[in-house]
Amino acid sequence: MSEQIRIGILGYGNLGKGVECAIKQNPDMKLAAVFTRRDPAAVSILTEGVKVCRVEEAAAMKDEIDVMILCGGSATDLPVQTPEYVQYFNVIDSFDTHAKIPEHFAAVDEAAKKSGKVGIISCGWDPGMFSLNRLYANAILPCGKDYTFWGKGVSQGHSDAVRRIEGVADARQYTIPVEEALERVRAGENPELTTREKHTRECFVVAEEGADLARIEEEIKTMPNYFDEYDTTVHFISAEEMKRDHSGIPHGGFVIRTGKTGWNEEYGDVIEYSLKLDSNPAFTSSVLVAFARAAYRLAKEGQCGCKTVFDIAPAYLSAMDGETLRRTML
Amino acid sequence: MSEQIRIGILGYGNLGKGVECAIKQNPDMKLAAVFTRRDPAAVSILTEGVKVCRVEEAAAMKDEIDVMILCGGSATDLPVQTPEYVQYFNVIDSFDTHAKIPEHFAAVDEAAKKSGKVGIISCGWDPGMFSLNRLYANAILPCGKDYTFWGKGVSQGHSDAVRRIEGVADARQYTIPVEEALERVRAGENPELTTREKHTRECFVVAEEGADLARIEEEIKTMPNYFDEYDTTVHFISAEEMKRDHSGIPHGGFVIRTGKTGWNEEYGDVIEYSLKLDSNPAFTSSVLVAFARAAYRLAKEGQCGCKTVFDIAPAYLSAMDGETLRRTML
Repeated sequence: MSEQIRIGILGYGNLGKGVECAIKQNPDMKLAAVFTRRDPAAVSILTEGVKVCRVEEAAAMKDEIDVMILCGGSATDLPVQTPEYVQYFNVIDSFDTHAKIPEHFAAVDEAAKKSGKVGIISCGWDPGMFSLNRLYANAILPCGKDYTFWGKGVSQGHSDAVRRIEGVADARQYTIPVEEALERVRAGENPELTTREKHTRECFVVAEEGADLARIEEEIKTMPNYFDEYDTTVHFISAEEMKRDHSGIPHGGFVIRTGKTGWNEEYGDVIEYSLKLDSNPAFTSSVLVAFARAAYRLAKEGQCGCKTVFDIAPAYLSAMDGETLRRTML
Repeated sequence: MSEQIRIGILGYGNLGKGVECAIKQNPDMKLAAVFTRRDPAAVSILTEGVKVCRVEEAAAMKDEIDVMILCGGSATDLPVQTPEYVQYFNVIDSFDTHAKIPEHFAAVDEAAKKSGKVGIISCGWDPGMFSLNRLYANAILPCGKDYTFWGKGVSQGHSDAVRRIEGVADARQYTIPVEEALERVRAGENPELTTREKHTRECFVVAEEGADLARIEEEIKTMPNYFDEYDTTVHFISAEEMKRDHSGIPHGGFVIRTGKTGWNEEYGDVIEYSLKLDSNPAFTSSVLVAFARAAYRLAKEGQCGCKTVFDIAPAYLSAMDGETLRRTML
């Protein structure tokens, strides 16, 4: 075993814990330290013998960490953290606010070029593996149409929105792709699908005692942006049922491109990529860790600046060398 | 429109014609010439104003072609042609004899490093897009199991094998994945599947007049390597039915990796990539053309040597620039 890649985790929520678990599955890596904004004494991690530090201590440890995986949120954490920490480390994040990616890229690229480090942004499954599949399929089939479906899975944003309604003690929202729409796409019909035709939403709600259930249901179903354009089902359940049946964070989805080949576009093709995940953060973390290996190698080659999944040759993600990859996977 | 990439096609069979059609769909490319071992006067191509030349004329045209796409067969053509033509051109092939890829890589790499050209080998869908999906899925889920299913589609090798049986005038063989096996894999059962459990084979045979149909069927079903390990169905049909119902070359398949994430591998994940293709050669050609764009760009950057799909950053395949890709596909 050659030298292990030393990984730092910044932010120890579901994603940070997922990264810790993924490192355990990759013998060419080791967890160097976890950084938290909380009191380190109050944060207990799974890996024995690894220290939990205050975020303020990170910069001073820049020579002890090869790649820092930033596990904060896209709304307020990462726009600040990624450009900041790429001053000291090769970094990687899962920034997922699609509309703000160009802005985030520019900020990280500028800081990374100054520091001579590599910063990989928007890594996970969407953006991430779904984006890669959109790119490959579009490059192969220039005459075609893209479809992305999400689910069945828990949307944290929609669950939070329901929790903010008066009288709601807890809530979980599942996004569900409409099977009939998927089948029409796969059949090459190239349908124009409305929001309502693509996904349905299902909510499980624990109401506070004495709350007006009819009003809660109405408020959910008519909530602008979140629910009003969807067919939504609401189920009221007990706190026990919530804990027993809905404590997981499953997710997944489908990226499909249908296209035409042939001199007169006489042939139809369907390219489909799908994920079915028991744990959204555990899988996202596994993607982050594979790309952290790439960040380490790119930096070793002397590269710097902001990269996305589009800019990284697939071989950089694998622990195997080129010869083994060609022999076993090509 | 900046300068177009000038593509040469060497070998004008189903694959060469497919490349010609794919170039038509990519405005940043143009067909420069077709090279054939036949009499050029006897070869009529689809693109107006493009010349058909003898293969012997190719080397002299090295300054008129940016990337030569080699459309010969893997058995005898490509092992010779790819190392030969990479002396003069950036080249790309669809070499698909999996077991001989390391040897082919070494020969092309040596010649390409001498000439300073780029040679991309084993490009298509398997090897090619299926290989990429195996690599990505393995890098993300180190604890897991891979499955590849092919079909439903025409196997040329098996069709040819049936045609060699005495009394057979024509034949078409379809490889069909077993739906039940696919479902067990998707359900995360991690089954150990025998050859017979993964695929069935279906043959459509036009027999010569007076031929012994029972003997033909028996010879097919017991043919070593090709059929003896499979459940095979044989249908005798007329030449008219063959032409009407089986003149296409559809294919496709599934690459699935199931894996575990979490500290105690408590979460299950399924990554699935699938293709459903009306025309196998038309799709393979479309992949070749996208990677020809990459070969052109890599060569412009001054790179040389043999590459596979594993070595090429996805962005190189797309006609869009990085900023547009990030804005529209990430």
